[in-house]
Formats: sequence, structure tokens, C-alpha cells
Amino acid sequence: MGLSFILISSGPNLANFINYIRYLQIIMSNKKPSIPKGTRDFTPIVMCRRNYILETVKNAFERYSYVPIETPAMENTSTLTGKYGDEGDKLIFRIINSGDFLAKTQIDDTTDSKTILKDISDKALRYDLTVPFARFVVQNRNEITFPFKRYQMQNVWRADKPQKGRYREFFQCDADFIGTDSLLCEVELIQLYDDVFTNLNIPNVEIAINNRKILSGMVELMGASDIFENIVIILDKISLIGLERVKEEMLKEGLDANSISILESFLSVKIISDLSPLLEGSEVGKEGLKELQFIVDTVTDLGLQSANLIFDITLARGIDYYTGSILEVKNTDIEIGSIGGGGRYDSLTANFGIDGLSGVGISFGIDRIYLVMNELALFPNDVNLNTKVLFMNFGEKESKYCLPLLKELRLNGISSELYPTSVKLKKQMNYANNKGVQYVILVGENEINTGLLSVKNMATGEQQDLTIDQLISEINLNA
Amino acid sequence: MGLSFILISSGPNLANFINYIRYLQIIMSNKKPSIPKGTRDFTPIVMCRRNYILETVKNAFERYSYVPIETPAMENTSTLTGKYGDEGDKLIFRIINSGDFLAKTQIDDTTDSKTILKDISDKALRYDLTVPFARFVVQNRNEITFPFKRYQMQNVWRADKPQKGRYREFFQCDADFIGTDSLLCEVELIQLYDDVFTNLNIPNVEIAINNRKILSGMVELMGASDIFENIVIILDKISLIGLERVKEEMLKEGLDANSISILESFLSVKIISDLSPLLEGSEVGKEGLKELQFIVDTVTDLGLQSANLIFDITLARGIDYYTGSILEVKNTDIEIGSIGGGGRYDSLTANFGIDGLSGVGISFGIDRIYLVMNELALFPNDVNLNTKVLFMNFGEKESKYCLPLLKELRLNGISSELYPTSVKLKKQMNYANNKGVQYVILVGENEINTGLLSVKNMATGEQQDLTIDQLISEINLNA
Repeated sequence: MGLSFILISSGPNLANFINYIRYLQIIMSNKKPSIPKGTRDFTPIVMCRRNYILETVKNAFERYSYVPIETPAMENTSTLTGKYGDEGDKLIFRIINSGDFLAKTQIDDTTDSKTILKDISDKALRYDLTVPFARFVVQNRNEITFPFKRYQMQNVWRADKPQKGRYREFFQCDADFIGTDSLLCEVELIQLYDDVFTNLNIPNVEIAINNRKILSGMVELMGASDIFENIVIILDKISLIGLERVKEEMLKEGLDANSISILESFLSVKIISDLSPLLEGSEVGKEGLKELQFIVDTVTDLGLQSANLIFDITLARGIDYYTGSILEVKNTDIEIGSIGGGGRYDSLTANFGIDGLSGVGISFGIDRIYLVMNELALFPNDVNLNTKVLFMNFGEKESKYCLPLLKELRLNGISSELYPTSVKLKKQMNYANNKGVQYVILVGENEINTGLLSVKNMATGEQQDLTIDQLISEINLNA
Repeated sequence: MGLSFILISSGPNLANFINYIRYLQIIMSNKKPSIPKGTRDFTPIVMCRRNYILETVKNAFERYSYVPIETPAMENTSTLTGKYGDEGDKLIFRIINSGDFLAKTQIDDTTDSKTILKDISDKALRYDLTVPFARFVVQNRNEITFPFKRYQMQNVWRADKPQKGRYREFFQCDADFIGTDSLLCEVELIQLYDDVFTNLNIPNVEIAINNRKILSGMVELMGASDIFENIVIILDKISLIGLERVKEEMLKEGLDANSISILESFLSVKIISDLSPLLEGSEVGKEGLKELQFIVDTVTDLGLQSANLIFDITLARGIDYYTGSILEVKNTDIEIGSIGGGGRYDSLTANFGIDGLSGVGISFGIDRIYLVMNELALFPNDVNLNTKVLFMNFGEKESKYCLPLLKELRLNGISSELYPTSVKLKKQMNYANNKGVQYVILVGENEINTGLLSVKNMATGEQQDLTIDQLISEINLNA
């Protein structure tokens, strides 16, 4: 298309010409709608699949006796900053104060953006669910029964560089068990992971477990406690960069050959009990091993439905608020990173004034679970919210006849509709096909006279004459 | 409490003193957590009640064959501005661009806030679901089957002055039927309102209906078409300020006695057919009346379950995009304003480049529905997500014995948990009571030997010895 089209059709066919001008207006105007980068519209088919995942997770949370809470999208900026490191702070989306936000601030050429930021914005979008949860627990502590088992399923926002699988608005599903240091919580959360992934039919799920105290013990024995975090960050990359590069980086950190050899002995551990002689010299290490052993033994006794629990000494999980067990879940078929993770923390609420409240939490990565299920074609066929019954519209008299029948189907819980106008049957059939309708009802003069409905099963092509009660029975039978 | 407390207890009891210092630190530090005004935390009990309403609405949307979509919390600012009037634009929450947002802009003392705003922010939080829906329809038009029936249930944000029942973050539930001008859509949406409020058991629900074209006809006959919007705005206030003040304000608008008398004849109309002679001289008015009559007749023929459909000539609904039917729902027991509203629009998508796509939509006011149900005590007792079964924890041996039983209950879909530590029974019982647990299981030495569980029904106080299978049967029987 282009200008030539105007020349060709600008002859006698004025209507075409006007349509084309309208089309050009749309294309050339600034009205082409779009959404901010890193955000998404969810169409009905995607919504149904996402809801299938979310409902499965929610159902498990509730069977495991977690109760729901929600927190506002906006938090006071002071609630969020300083909790995610300098890099994290930069990724927090800030909201401009309403009203004349500049009135309060003195600005000239030399004013830096941090100063202005403080003056014009005191709210920000939540960056995760964990910090708002800690704030919630402290703020609502008088209404909470401890130990507190809560789940929370809400969007979070990060001004990250968007890329495949990484969005600026994404959904988090968290369950936390706070106010007790019982290791039965870890056992339960591992069972919960297994339960959800079994119900979603995701095969080859690996739940990796480690313990921060074991890592502390190892680093202590390596004589490197003062650079614990650096060590952990390097170790975390081992699956990406390999053992040799890890050793190189450790040397750069100033570790000697003896330390590296201790590290290597830990990395060669295959079963948990082999850790015992290695950790002999570290109290914190022995404590971590005892915790790990209890969790793994208890889970093994109970048995998992489909997932595998594996010990991984290299599992570190960067975020520094974990203090005990750490967990990470992967599907080994698809290279996409973790589809869940969590761990125990001892002082999450300390930032807000309550110290010493131990807890453990896990998170489900809904976007990645979606990608895995999509890739492995695991969504059930009936996950879409299809209209069960569509009445074709043959005109005013016929549609009026259908309305009470439509009402009866809906009262019986059957998703149904009447095509709103009596356009050509072909158009109505297209609508039925596009929407994946299961039964199409044709009601004309004849059907009105006999009182029977002409029912077409769109899957089989079979056509039957049924009363409305027979139709309801047939649908309930096949449901 | 206060400083005197320190003096009294700072003697030998050092632990108390330290605790008090800690308490002072919490109180005096800037760590007291809070949330932005106009926003809310939802505790589990509130969440369960809200979810009960939302599930009822969602279930109706789906039975009526509406399909779900979601749009991002952030839209490009240009998508939102200019759609809600000048007042609305001021209430849009804007988001600061990430990165060094000041680098791009020249600022000195004379720079006004609008200029800066444009430079530092290009995204904003959605203000309602209607404009994002129009944007969605145009942007995704190739993936949509028209007519398109969609529902959307998401938060919106407005920088409004917070007051009772008005929040800065609140939930909207919309259903729209777009791409057809069939009046059967209005019929269906009135049935949908009736369906939801019947299922929520809300009594005395009044669905008021009017038509913009009837209002246009009336104003035309009053000779005031050039100030149609002012007339409508005054009329909208009649229930607040009364007829006399309405007449006064109309006079101030320059209407003469004849116009006022025409207005009065319209206001005295009790049944729809009385409109017929009044609208004789207005084409648009007669069209509106014909539409109204069809809708009311069809709904009356079908019958509503519990709501009353009433005609209200004063119903105008301020928002100016409505062009045909208008609807508003109230509960007549509680003075709280409308709990739902909607109407037909002819050019919602015109802003984004597609004109002439007629549609009709309704909205449920979840926060107000919550308040009405709370006030009238309409929430069912079993709406809370209570733990069905709690195993008491008497120690390591006993809790290990309970774990496989707990697993079995959860696999059978029964919400259950084990108290995580073996603290005093009284504390565990308090937990059970606070959480509204239905059955408490006591497993000690004796129960382990007999294989029977000591089951206490917390509602009746009755205690029974049951096998796990008997317990599951009993729970399923009472579900």
C-alpha cells in the first residue's frame, strides 16, 4: 500500500477513498496506542492459563493453612529504600506527589536529582512482597496470631532493563511462616512446593537445599569469614563459570592454596553425612548440618509426590537476609533458571522495630512457571474459559424465545450467551469457533413449534434435538 | 507510661529495664511503620470477605460468558490524560522515569511544574479500567473476536482527598460488551446485576435506569441543548438539593418559566409510557424512549430474581462518554450512594483511532458492597478461611507421628496444620481459638498405641476417638 493506492482508487469509488483517508489518519496520527516497555496486556487465553497456575498455588497455600493478606501497591519511600542495596534502590519506581509538587522545593541549575527526588516524591511502588510483609507484621502485630502463616499474591514493579522473561511489572506468590524457628516449617514448605508442581503436572522438578550456617562454617574453616559475602557471591556463579574460574576468583580475593583445598573438599561432597567430618571444627557449621539433616530426613520419611530434594553446597542465593535454610526450585528440562526459591531469615522485621522474629518463606515464579508449562505443553485443554452454550440469533421473535432458556442455563451454572444481533449465520458461526463454544443452539420457527432445541456439538459435529432439561443433563454429565 | 517507669523499675530488675529501653527505641525511632494515606492493608479476615464478593462477581461474569483481561498498572501518560477532564488529570498519579531523570531537562527558578513533569515522567498509574480497556481493544484488535465481552477486576489509583469510603487505591470490577448496539446487552447486564446481588443476599436492591437520549430530548424541548451538560449536572444533584434548588439553579442558567415547566412535567412522570406524549416533538427523545421501553419490557417479561428495576428521569451520571442507556444500583437500606453503575457509549475507542464501536458496560463498587454487607451482617459465617484441623504438638516423637496424617488430610483437600513447636497446651489452644480452627487433634502416647486420634470439635466441645479415615469422612460429611 501507499500513495499509489489513492491514485488507483480515487476515481469513482468515493467510499473506498474516504475509508483509506480514515485509515491513513489512524496510522499517521499519534493515536497509535502502546504500553510502557516491560509491561504486558493479558489477553483472555493468557489470563485463563495464568489463573490456572495461580488457582493451583492458592489452593495449596490454603490446604497448608496459610491465610491471605494484601498490602498497597504504594509504600512510603522510606519503607522501601535501603533494603535492596544501592542497585535495588535505583530500580524502585517513585510516584510524584499530587498537587503543585514544585512549590515546596528550591531548584536551580546546580540542584542534584536526589534532592529534588526527596522533595517531589514520598511514595513508591513496592519492589517485592517481603519488605511490605515485614512492615505489615510490625504495623498489624496486635491483630496477628503468632506463629503467623500468610500468603500474598500481588504484582511488584522494578525499573529493570526489560528482556525476555524479565518484566517491569510482574507477579509474586509468597508463603511465609513467621514467629517460630521450628524446622517443621521448612519440611512443610518443601512439601508445598512438591504439592503444587505435582498438581501442575510439571515433571523433573528439583528442589535444591542448603543452609547458610553450613556456608558460614565452610568459609570460617577456610579462614575467610571477613569476606563471607564475596565468597558466597563467587560460589553462586559456579554453575555459570565452572570450578576453575571460581578458584581463580577466590585466589584474587586473597585465599591461599589451603583455603582452596578446603573449598574443594566441600564441593566434592555427594551425601550430607560426608559433611560431618569436614565441619567438625565449626560450631555454626555443625548447627547448620544438624538442621539440614533433620529437614532432609523428615522429608525423606514422608516422601515427596514427584519432586526430587537434592543437597547443593553451591546454593547460596545472593540476597543477604537469609540466615538458615535456603531453597531453590528448577525444572531440569528447560534452561530458564529457578521457578521458585526461599529460605529462613532471623531479622526481617528488625528494620521496622521488632527484632528476633524468625521466619521462613518461599516464592513461586509465576512467569517462569508459565513459560515452562507453555514450552512443555502442560496446560490442560479445558483451561480456557469457553462459553459452553451459544444461542444463534435468527431475529427478534426467535431471540425472545431463547432468553428464558438462556436464563435457565445460567441459573444452572452453565456459561452461556445469545448472539446479540441477527447477522448472517456464517458470522455467528465464526464467532462460535473463535470463542471455542461447545454447543451451538439453533432455534427457528420449527423449534419454537416443537419446543425442542436443535443442539450442535461443535467438537463432534453431532446434531441433536433436545429439551432444555436434556441439554442441562448432557452438559452436567460431560462436565 | 513515660520516664517515671524507668525510675520505678530501674532497680534490680535489669531485664525489665532493657526491655523498656528497647520499647523506647521502637517508639522513638523513625522506624514506626505506616502506609501512604488513602491506602489500606488487608488482614486475612477482610481478605476472605472481599474474596467472597469478588468470587461471586467473577462467577457471574463467567456464567454470562464474559472473558477476563488484565492491563498494566502503568500506562503511558498520554493514554490517560485528557480523558477525565481537567480535574481528573490532576488526580492521576505519575511515575518518575528511572535513571538520572534531571539530565534531560533544563531547570531554573522560573520553570513551571508542568514543564518539569513532562520531562521527568512519561508513565502514570491507571485511573480507571475503562480508558485502558479502550486502549487494549484498539491495540489488540486483531486478536479479538467482536462483539467482545470482557471483564476486568483490578486496582485503580486516584490522588483524591481520602475520606470514609474513598481511597487512593481501590478495586474496580467491570464487564463490557463492545462492538454491537443490540439492546439485548443492556437486558443481560441488568440480569447480571440482579444475579450477583441475589447471590450475595443483599436485599432491597434498586437498579435505576434512564437514557441519555431521553435527557437530550427533554433538554432539546426545554430549548437548552447548548447547555445540555450544565443541565444534566444540576439534575444529577436533585436527590441532594431538592426540586426547588434545582429550579433556582436552572433559572440562573438562563432558563425561562416555560422551560422549567417542561422540566417539571418530565420530573412528574411516574410510568415510562407517560413519557410518550411529552417527547412527541423530539426525534432523539423518541429514540431513547423506544430503547428504554424495549429494555424494561424484556427485563419485565424475563423477571428479576430479587432486584427492582426502576425508571429515574433524574439519573444522569456525570461522566460524559455515555450516549444511550444509563444504569445505577443502590441498596435502599444504607445511605452510601451507588454500589454499581454503567451505561452505553458510542465512541470510547475513538481516542485511540477506532470510531463507531458501540458498547455498554457496568461496574461493581466492591468497597461499598463490602460496607453494605458488613453493616447488614450479610457475610456467611463460613466465609473465613479457617484451618479445619490443627494437630497439637506434644514433642518430637508425637509430631513425627502426626506428619503422615497431616499429609493425608491435605491430599484430601482439607486445610490442616501442625503446631510447629511443643509449647504449653494453653498457648496452642489460644492459637486454635484465634484462628477459628474446627477440629483439634490430640496425639499422645496413648493415641500412638491405639492408633486412634483424640478429636475435639471446637464448636460443640465434643471429643471423639477416630481413625484418620473416620475423621476425613466426618469432615467431608459436614462440608
